[in-house]
Amino acid sequence: MTDEFETPDGYRILHVEDLAPQIAAIADLRKRLGGAPEAWTAAEISDGNMNAVYRLTGPSGSLIVKQALPYIRVIGEGWPFPVSRIHFEAAAMARQAELAPAHVPALLHRDDGLGLLVMEDLRGHAVVRQALVAGTHFPRLAAHMGEFLARTLFFTSDFHLATPQTSAIEAAFSGNAHLCRTSEDVIFTGPYGEAPYNRVTRGNEAVAAALRGDRDLKRAACEMKLVYRTRSQALLHGDLHTGSVMATATETRVIDAEWAFFGPMGFDIGALVGNLLLSAISQPGHDGARCDRAALSDRLLQTASDVWTHFAECFAALAARAGGELLAPAIYDETSRRAIVADHLRSVFEDMLGFAGAKMIRRIIGISHVEDFELIGDVAVRAERERHALRVARRLLLERRDIAAMDAVRDLVRAEAAGDAGPGR
Amino acid sequence: MTDEFETPDGYRILHVEDLAPQIAAIADLRKRLGGAPEAWTAAEISDGNMNAVYRLTGPSGSLIVKQALPYIRVIGEGWPFPVSRIHFEAAAMARQAELAPAHVPALLHRDDGLGLLVMEDLRGHAVVRQALVAGTHFPRLAAHMGEFLARTLFFTSDFHLATPQTSAIEAAFSGNAHLCRTSEDVIFTGPYGEAPYNRVTRGNEAVAAALRGDRDLKRAACEMKLVYRTRSQALLHGDLHTGSVMATATETRVIDAEWAFFGPMGFDIGALVGNLLLSAISQPGHDGARCDRAALSDRLLQTASDVWTHFAECFAALAARAGGELLAPAIYDETSRRAIVADHLRSVFEDMLGFAGAKMIRRIIGISHVEDFELIGDVAVRAERERHALRVARRLLLERRDIAAMDAVRDLVRAEAAGDAGPGR
Ligand SMILES: Nc1ncnc2c1ncn2[C@@H]1O[C@H](COP(=O)(O)OP(=O)(O)OP(=O)(O)O)[C@@H](O)[C@H]1O
Ligand SMILES: Nc1ncnc2c1ncn2[C@@H]1O[C@H](COP(=O)(O)OP(=O)(O)OP(=O)(O)O)[C@@H](O)[C@H]1O
Repeated sequence: MTDEFETPDGYRILHVEDLAPQIAAIADLRKRLGGAPEAWTAAEISDGNMNAVYRLTGPSGSLIVKQALPYIRVIGEGWPFPVSRIHFEAAAMARQAELAPAHVPALLHRDDGLGLLVMEDLRGHAVVRQALVAGTHFPRLAAHMGEFLARTLFFTSDFHLATPQTSAIEAAFSGNAHLCRTSEDVIFTGPYGEAPYNRVTRGNEAVAAALRGDRDLKRAACEMKLVYRTRSQALLHGDLHTGSVMATATETRVIDAEWAFFGPMGFDIGALVGNLLLSAISQPGHDGARCDRAALSDRLLQTASDVWTHFAECFAALAARAGGELLAPAIYDETSRRAIVADHLRSVFEDMLGFAGAKMIRRIIGISHVEDFELIGDVAVRAERERHALRVARRLLLERRDIAAMDAVRDLVRAEAAGDAGPGR
Repeated sequence: MTDEFETPDGYRILHVEDLAPQIAAIADLRKRLGGAPEAWTAAEISDGNMNAVYRLTGPSGSLIVKQALPYIRVIGEGWPFPVSRIHFEAAAMARQAELAPAHVPALLHRDDGLGLLVMEDLRGHAVVRQALVAGTHFPRLAAHMGEFLARTLFFTSDFHLATPQTSAIEAAFSGNAHLCRTSEDVIFTGPYGEAPYNRVTRGNEAVAAALRGDRDLKRAACEMKLVYRTRSQALLHGDLHTGSVMATATETRVIDAEWAFFGPMGFDIGALVGNLLLSAISQPGHDGARCDRAALSDRLLQTASDVWTHFAECFAALAARAGGELLAPAIYDETSRRAIVADHLRSVFEDMLGFAGAKMIRRIIGISHVEDFELIGDVAVRAERERHALRVARRLLLERRDIAAMDAVRDLVRAEAAGDAGPGR
């Protein structure tokens, strides 16, 4: 955390009043907003932890401006963080736009010197995490995300590309390693020790302490850390939780790829699945006056399951048509190709479960908590919901090699609903 | 094979008579050879496939000059190959020299523009592969190579380094991807199809055809290809067979790191172990007049086994003292750390067996054969020895997850000695 990072020459932190003149200088963007820059309105909309995000609105339209600060926004200068992350976010977005154009906002402009990117304003889209807390249903979410995952992961992997190409992508993102190191710390290490920003809900102190003394769990988390560090399979989004997805009833878009790196496919899928499970498990803790929380919970378990199923089907379909060197048709017949792809998907499934478990735990006893639980007003209920999630997460990590399919995950979530031994445990 | 690679500006192929003037221009080297350059003798000693290698001798000493040609030496201009490989060889040698200085020749000079490196002349050292055919015993080989492997792999891995450091090494070697792709082709793909340079010993045509129709085997080889491509664990030598090791009774040095890349630890170990098994299995085919070939064979099985044991012990000892982020002592106690390292070594062991099997097969039915068998004059005997090796290799690939330890490998080699069904099979 005491590392120093170079900010680019000419970098300066923009203030809300700097935005209109800055953007007006770019002809395309000026035209898009229309009218005179003096008449534009700018508003900070940052709700994440990391960066400054603004909406700039003119008479003809609006756009979103995101600037990376040389530190973590919610913490401040005490936690320096490389501005170069915006370069990697833009590079990842550009590739996602090629591979899954329907599922990312359009990238309109980038300025690595200012640590800036400008993108399409997803008006009418809601951030999925908060919308799920409010009881919103996204009927297309699983299908769209399954497709997004399959396409971005397949087309940047050895199943589609030759080694010089995957090596070049990997090298192009290797400079984002400081963010990878931070991910490792906050996901796989921090929650299991005395990391400075860890936080635990009142009533769960003993449960958290028990997890920190749980050798089997820590060993599994360390194994997943090693998988995160060493399994170079595809270009990942790198932080694909429900807060990085914006959606409507018919559309689904992925934002915030600043953690992109070349890594294990299961990490992106596990992030999404784990966070959907958190949402499902948290539902009964929220106000049931306006919606049937038990039904929402069931539907979210189904969504988590469908994400995997859609991913796996779409990936297998792409692989069946692959002409790449890995599955050279002159050598492997149809049956062999299918078997090799199935072996691969089985191993991604295991990684996915392990990462889902690790991601769930880190959101409950680590540095960064989520609205799914934070918005449960009754602390005792919140703590109890969190304990349910922790029991599930632990089993995902420890039993990842034995869990046969997503149905078993659903059964496991339901079985653990009954397992609460209270805060004292 | 039709790719074109840029040769560096000013690159030219040196001829044997160019060497003295070229080297005399470098003061240190001139001094090392002594006397007048006109009195130096230069001789080509290339016995490998890839590059031009020379010995330059003066009154005070000698040195070895290696130049990468813009093609594969034994094939010629029809197979272009990047001169940049010498850059990666020198970079890998430099790192090996830091980590295991006793086990590499000193790097005296490098000139990436000419695709040149100059190194210590290992006078008195023999290339291990040919020396084993001649019946030479290297009593220190296993201990030295176990240590070389443990130190070069551990200190370039996540067990010792933080993510930004491993990422930087990986990126620094990503430009060697064309060599990785060639390795994949000749090891994991070519032998199983109709690759143009494949060769099979007379009498083994049917056996080779059977392997090419063997779905289980091809699936396992493809799995290993995927492991080769995606498991980024450490900086590897990349071609660590017995022809890349030069030794005396007391010293052991590794040469020829041009295939270096950041990959699976098991690949380097498997290359060495697989080639030691080839040597062991080939022994009974060689002239037994001057040495007891059965005893040599047993001793080589022991050596293969000892390489693994020394590697694993040395790696575990280094890991026990590691202060890196992966095994953070504040989080994992002694027992947990040991368990995590043991899990890792188990997975490296499986990879090692799979790679050993793949490497054995490719030397028998692929493009590049080895003296262990080629020097067996009686073709029927050679074919029979090769069949033994193929049976062993197939089982290593298919049973890698079930083989408990190196003892079982030895048992398997012995059991398969009796399994010959003749050339017709
Ligand atoms: N293209 C967009 N259209 C509309 N709103 C957006 C868009 N991009 C971001 N936002 C809003 O800005 C918020 C912050 O964006 P983003 O998640 O990219 O920032 P961040 O600071 O990197 O967050 P995090 O802490 O999650 O990394 C989003 O949660 C969303 O509300
Ligand atoms: N440092 C050295 N001292 C003495 N002899 C050496 C040295 N380096 C190489 N040689 C000799 O030169 C031969 C070829 O060297 P090397 O294996 O590095 O070349 P190569 O063309 O890259 O081979 P390969 O086809 O195995 O890749 C060695 O087998 C060995 O006989």
